[in-house]
Amino acid sequence: MIINKPTLLVSERVVRSNIRHMLGKIQPFATSLRPHFKTHHSRDIGEWYRDEGITKITCSSVTMAQYFAQSGWKDITVAFPYNPLEADDINDLAGKITLNVLIESVEALEHLISRVEQPLTYFIKIDIGTHRTGVSPDNIELIMQLANKGSQHRFKGLLAHAGHAYQQLDKDRAQEIFDQSIQTLTMIKSVLNLPELIISYGDTPTCTLVENLKGVDEIRPGNFAFYDRMQASFGVCTLDHIGVCLVCPVVAIHAERNEAVIYGGGVHLSKDFIIDKGVRNYGTVVDWNGDQWSSKPRAFLSKLSQEHGIINGSRDYIDSLKVGDLIGVLPIHSCLTADLQGSYLDLQGNRLHKLNRTP
Amino acid sequence: MIINKPTLLVSERVVRSNIRHMLGKIQPFATSLRPHFKTHHSRDIGEWYRDEGITKITCSSVTMAQYFAQSGWKDITVAFPYNPLEADDINDLAGKITLNVLIESVEALEHLISRVEQPLTYFIKIDIGTHRTGVSPDNIELIMQLANKGSQHRFKGLLAHAGHAYQQLDKDRAQEIFDQSIQTLTMIKSVLNLPELIISYGDTPTCTLVENLKGVDEIRPGNFAFYDRMQASFGVCTLDHIGVCLVCPVVAIHAERNEAVIYGGGVHLSKDFIIDKGVRNYGTVVDWNGDQWSSKPRAFLSKLSQEHGIINGSRDYIDSLKVGDLIGVLPIHSCLTADLQGSYLDLQGNRLHKLNRTP
Repeated sequence: MIINKPTLLVSERVVRSNIRHMLGKIQPFATSLRPHFKTHHSRDIGEWYRDEGITKITCSSVTMAQYFAQSGWKDITVAFPYNPLEADDINDLAGKITLNVLIESVEALEHLISRVEQPLTYFIKIDIGTHRTGVSPDNIELIMQLANKGSQHRFKGLLAHAGHAYQQLDKDRAQEIFDQSIQTLTMIKSVLNLPELIISYGDTPTCTLVENLKGVDEIRPGNFAFYDRMQASFGVCTLDHIGVCLVCPVVAIHAERNEAVIYGGGVHLSKDFIIDKGVRNYGTVVDWNGDQWSSKPRAFLSKLSQEHGIINGSRDYIDSLKVGDLIGVLPIHSCLTADLQGSYLDLQGNRLHKLNRTP
Repeated sequence: MIINKPTLLVSERVVRSNIRHMLGKIQPFATSLRPHFKTHHSRDIGEWYRDEGITKITCSSVTMAQYFAQSGWKDITVAFPYNPLEADDINDLAGKITLNVLIESVEALEHLISRVEQPLTYFIKIDIGTHRTGVSPDNIELIMQLANKGSQHRFKGLLAHAGHAYQQLDKDRAQEIFDQSIQTLTMIKSVLNLPELIISYGDTPTCTLVENLKGVDEIRPGNFAFYDRMQASFGVCTLDHIGVCLVCPVVAIHAERNEAVIYGGGVHLSKDFIIDKGVRNYGTVVDWNGDQWSSKPRAFLSKLSQEHGIINGSRDYIDSLKVGDLIGVLPIHSCLTADLQGSYLDLQGNRLHKLNRTP
């Protein structure tokens, strides 16, 4: 495999194993998996889920839903507030597949009813503590208004995302966040007195760590397919579970300050970072042997500019590098790193298609 | 102009004015402008520079140089350390245009000599205080080795980038950084005793603020074409000089916490931020009237996730918004925001081509 510039490699073995592991978790429960595809954005990787029996997916934009609909996905939830300006595209898509959208205001619902003729289903987005989007569970009046507005569209359930679970976690704390969330959603469902409603719950940290999924009809984790350095820092995965690695050329060595420079910067990795031992970490540096990466940390990226990454490592490690070597970077936030690529390579060198911006 | 999702608008008037202003600055001096094109990545915007007489440009990657070479640019400096793994592409490009590359080690220069047959010119990259890349000015021995290695390639000059000027600046401090840099480079040139060498100096903050450019043969600012919120925070430009604005739909209102949610997140803006009044600012929110944006700040983005941006504003401002409105965001770092787009629109709705990742 010839790599001469920053290239995102995907381990099919690790990703398939991550998918199977998540499927194993739901198996004892009446819970289905509707994975979020915003992490990989790839119709080719989507097939790995299909091989495991997945038929329903989640997307973060209408554009992404169009892309996966073209690849044969027939049941898609766009887990993003309904955007009235995309009503025509939503109408078109709803005529082709089972499309589920999110509603959190009367204005949005009225727009959906008046401007989208094709019947679709909608969820009410409930804010279970993240305070990013969604209706507060206290606002039962608004929830009832949104639930009881008769129209061509079907009210399908309550949807929530525990964004506040993105922190250092253990199984107990994850179960606590999960249980509180499901309790809130179950309470709302019982007030609405609509037993057919489904409860849809998201986020990779709790879905990975929770052992008892009782009470939830579907889960929508996304990042678990690739995981990343941030999830590892939360205690959600180990570095062995990370399914992607950005392979980058070394272009300069500055042993006097224990640094080396790679071709690989903010336009390849994104500017997300974690704070590790008090300093910013933009990625974990690992070995790349030409066929696979090692998950053993060798150094870290202490700075990123547009195309440059700065490796900070021990003097021994820096001395072991030379200009023209290839090293691997386990990304901090794999969803954003993946989004920045034109495509990926698997470990056999096959190119994996991904959704790109419209030129 | 129909906008229904995050779209980067470019003001041709502002960008052309920024280019003319930079040309005005060099006019009294024996200094030429070799603008960095890594900010706009666009062959269409490149023509606006050509209209002003620009013939030499800077790129941050070989891929970018290939793109602009295809658009008729004949003299390109790749302002990034020579990457041995791209020797074949560099050789190919050097056969077509005047190509200038950066060298900072004997290993890289020996590789260039042995693996790139087509004659090109090289600069020695000097570290004038940023400590990212380049040879320390103290390491005269290495500089002399790199300068005196005879080969098919021509040693053209000393190149530096004052990355340490990315901070709050005034004219005096900018002149001080500039003068120190040029003094260092001039000293090296005189030690080398090669009077034909040119001194090439970069970075938007000092090139914008400095009044006396004496002693520098060429400058390579890039960001000045678009500027951005970060440059404004340094005191380098005002918001009126910012040439790009990401127009985004409002998708949710949370007046109870003085917030609104836009379709526009990390995959559209990048995760770069500034600290303003003690809190993270991911972009300045301005009005968009359907034809142009205002440069008057109305609010700011306090959080970004993959597709969501959170507007934090006064209660009056949040109350003035409704779902389905379009607002503008002046980006924190326009180079990264521009890189994330598939293309741009000018204010007449014409699509401007940009370099994209290879699918």
